[in-house]
Amino acid sequence: VLAQLGCHQVNHLQVTENQPADAPATLARLQAAALVFVTGGDQERLTEQLLGTQFLEVLRQRHQHDAGFILAGTSAGASALGGQMLVAGRGWRSLLGGGISVIPGLALLPSLLVDQHFIERERYPRLLHAVLAYPMLLGVGLSEETGLLLRPGRPAEVFGTEVVVVADARHLTATNYPTLAKGQPLSARGLRMDLLVAGDELVIG
Amino acid sequence: VLAQLGCHQVNHLQVTENQPADAPATLARLQAAALVFVTGGDQERLTEQLLGTQFLEVLRQRHQHDAGFILAGTSAGASALGGQMLVAGRGWRSLLGGGISVIPGLALLPSLLVDQHFIERERYPRLLHAVLAYPMLLGVGLSEETGLLLRPGRPAEVFGTEVVVVADARHLTATNYPTLAKGQPLSARGLRMDLLVAGDELVIG
Repeated sequence: VLAQLGCHQVNHLQVTENQPADAPATLARLQAAALVFVTGGDQERLTEQLLGTQFLEVLRQRHQHDAGFILAGTSAGASALGGQMLVAGRGWRSLLGGGISVIPGLALLPSLLVDQHFIERERYPRLLHAVLAYPMLLGVGLSEETGLLLRPGRPAEVFGTEVVVVADARHLTATNYPTLAKGQPLSARGLRMDLLVAGDELVIG
Repeated sequence: VLAQLGCHQVNHLQVTENQPADAPATLARLQAAALVFVTGGDQERLTEQLLGTQFLEVLRQRHQHDAGFILAGTSAGASALGGQMLVAGRGWRSLLGGGISVIPGLALLPSLLVDQHFIERERYPRLLHAVLAYPMLLGVGLSEETGLLLRPGRPAEVFGTEVVVVADARHLTATNYPTLAKGQPLSARGLRMDLLVAGDELVIG
């Protein structure tokens, strides 16, 4: 597919127990790449293999300081880029106490908490719960065929055919989250929600 | 069930084509009732039978001016009380242009747009869409076993075991709603959302 789209030098940079992220050949390829595309699958496996590696440090440096470098992620590969990531939470009960699991992400986009397949899988309750748990992070729910384009020094820009749902708990006036028991309903006042479509911009703090 | 709860004078006030709302006996019973409980079922049938009737006028007068009178509604009977009501919109596509149907309600609570079975049926997208269509109305999503207690001159108060989701588009800063084509994704900036639980108060403008 990527070759059909005009990408003529596509290589699969595989990182596993047998091909560790910090192998010299792997790091050399990362240094030379113009674009890294983090594919979907299992975001816990991604962070297990990459957190604490020199590979991740090189990726962070290139992402932050190399204006020509492009970092992309889809599905689990998008979620893993955030400061924290949702790894469990299904259906309406994900809004109840104990209804989600959130663990540290790769923090290449440290101020975000990214969810995906968002409107299609109706993940509103789990993203709302996640931003109440981590109110300093901006919750970003990506729909399928839809993404955010992030470039240094500019606001992020939405592309694609559907919506990006932004859940913002940074200015809450009240919540019962800190004392919430398992199975009890969450309360919160002052959540902000934005629905963004292609061309809309988002300032990421 | 109601008799078990201590209500000893419960009568079924039925309104149909054969028992019109404005029959003298029906109006006399409405004038004498201490409480009217609007049950669930079909909210379109409720408004068809009641809009424009003297019955509804008496109900409105008693609700507004008779401090001892209690008006209650559940399920479709709660939705019908609002200024407008959702009568169609299912799943995630209810957030797309043309994805919902909204028609006038009984307007006994004229500033509200009430949805129900809200968190259980994951009705976030359709309520968000509805308040973008009617931004002057406050969207209220009632969960099962959960309700709002409204008393004259006081803020509404949540009761029950789950959450009331309030969607407020009264202070939007941008939306594509007015020019939205069928099937296209909605955009909006500055939606406010509150999650309220038992004991929480809500000021209804």
